Amino acid sequence: MMILEEHICFGGTLKIVGHQSEVLGCAMKFSIFLPKGVETTKAPALMFLSGLTCTHENFTTKAGAYRKAAELGMIIIAPDTSPRGDDVPDDEAYDFGKGAGFYINATQEPWAKNYQMESYIAKELPHLLAAEFAVTGKMGISGHSMGGHGALTLYMKYPERFASCSAFAPIVTPSYVPWGRKAFTGYLGVEGPEWSKHDACELVEDAQIDRTKTILIDQGTEDQFVEEQLKPELFNEACEEAGQAVKIRYQNGYDHSYYFISSFIDDHLEHHIKLLA
Amino acid sequence: MMILEEHICFGGTLKIVGHQSEVLGCAMKFSIFLPKGVETTKAPALMFLSGLTCTHENFTTKAGAYRKAAELGMIIIAPDTSPRGDDVPDDEAYDFGKGAGFYINATQEPWAKNYQMESYIAKELPHLLAAEFAVTGKMGISGHSMGGHGALTLYMKYPERFASCSAFAPIVTPSYVPWGRKAFTGYLGVEGPEWSKHDACELVEDAQIDRTKTILIDQGTEDQFVEEQLKPELFNEACEEAGQAVKIRYQNGYDHSYYFISSFIDDHLEHHIKLLA
Repeated sequence: MMILEEHICFGGTLKIVGHQSEVLGCAMKFSIFLPKGVETTKAPALMFLSGLTCTHENFTTKAGAYRKAAELGMIIIAPDTSPRGDDVPDDEAYDFGKGAGFYINATQEPWAKNYQMESYIAKELPHLLAAEFAVTGKMGISGHSMGGHGALTLYMKYPERFASCSAFAPIVTPSYVPWGRKAFTGYLGVEGPEWSKHDACELVEDAQIDRTKTILIDQGTEDQFVEEQLKPELFNEACEEAGQAVKIRYQNGYDHSYYFISSFIDDHLEHHIKLLA
Repeated sequence: MMILEEHICFGGTLKIVGHQSEVLGCAMKFSIFLPKGVETTKAPALMFLSGLTCTHENFTTKAGAYRKAAELGMIIIAPDTSPRGDDVPDDEAYDFGKGAGFYINATQEPWAKNYQMESYIAKELPHLLAAEFAVTGKMGISGHSMGGHGALTLYMKYPERFASCSAFAPIVTPSYVPWGRKAFTGYLGVEGPEWSKHDACELVEDAQIDRTKTILIDQGTEDQFVEEQLKPELFNEACEEAGQAVKIRYQNGYDHSYYFISSFIDDHLEHHIKLLA
């Protein structure tokens, strides 16, 4: 592990960390914000998963989250969205390959060797955080768009790891929307039962999670992707059927950008800290 | 004038504006944040000038200023740092030519035709803002590094235009530091009396400004440029001699990055709104 950058920010420390990932078979970067004076074994921590085309940098530089995180004493980790490097297979499209790992473990070639983002986010990275930063205990998980899909699904798959969940404009049912169908076909193969294991609308029915812990979702009404790719109303229906508490806030006039995220990130940090307390 | 992007942000509107600049002889972009419901003729407005290598985007996406601006009802304009486009002469260096206009009017060829950033920021852009957005009245001015130099000097040169001033890690005496000497030599010619007209430490003695209005400066103690390029202590001395109120805050551990700016931008907006009231 190498500290590539270190900046004081709102009295805390923002580090850009480089490390060799075993499970992804490549060098990776993530950012971690450590508020001043927190005891990392006890501080609440949030994992934030970014969307298509993003790296660890987008959230880190644009979300404006660290003012509130410093105030709340909350650690925030922002990982990359796919394996990286010249040896990792890629695709020309913006929505498949690098920058589009979809937070699942690929089973199809040539992707299976490196595209193991589920194991990276839910297992390898938390172990590294525990070993190197003494960040232990359950974390919150949030994300944007493809990262919202990641947050919802990993929260439901790994209740021993994540204890609170929120999302910004998430892909809630990748099995039924173009972005998800393309990624699942490429990484997992032809449509079948395997797809349902990575679809928030399917997972929620049997998820072993505390049903009373509300999942918070913000969705801009002017988001260009809401109708074709996101479909938050389907997650609302699935949660109702499963008896899962969910709060979807339709934010008037907001789009899919980080201007939207920055406007509501404070609410999400407050949401997580209450559930992590 | 063309609206290139428009995003709802903290209830207000962030616009990326493109226009043809007469004085620069090229197409330019700037961002403007308009808080919800403000009457633009009456709202306080702040011009923020960025540093070397920046465009209008850096402050816009990274400073995290719009939460507080929305709260205060403050308009913020973030212009570019130089003329742009294939027809504008450039230099390979990061600290001269495009991205390094230094907020002065060049007199030397081949720069004089386009590098007229002083006239652009102090005259053409305010006229455009008045005509297109009804933003009238005196503005506050702030900036970072090279943009801090711009803020300090334009505040003192154009008291009829700017009514409050602050800076983050400004170049306070370009005549005596490598970045400034290189730029002034290139844009203005060999060292002489002309240089002093664009040096904050020289200008402050005779500036026709309200001496009781404090100039607020934040400077990180771990800023890699502080000793060689910035030298805030020299501006402190010059202000003392001139009877000019100045407050230089040395922020422990902070560097030259936008993580530093974002940590203290709220204080600067509060500073400006008090003086603009």
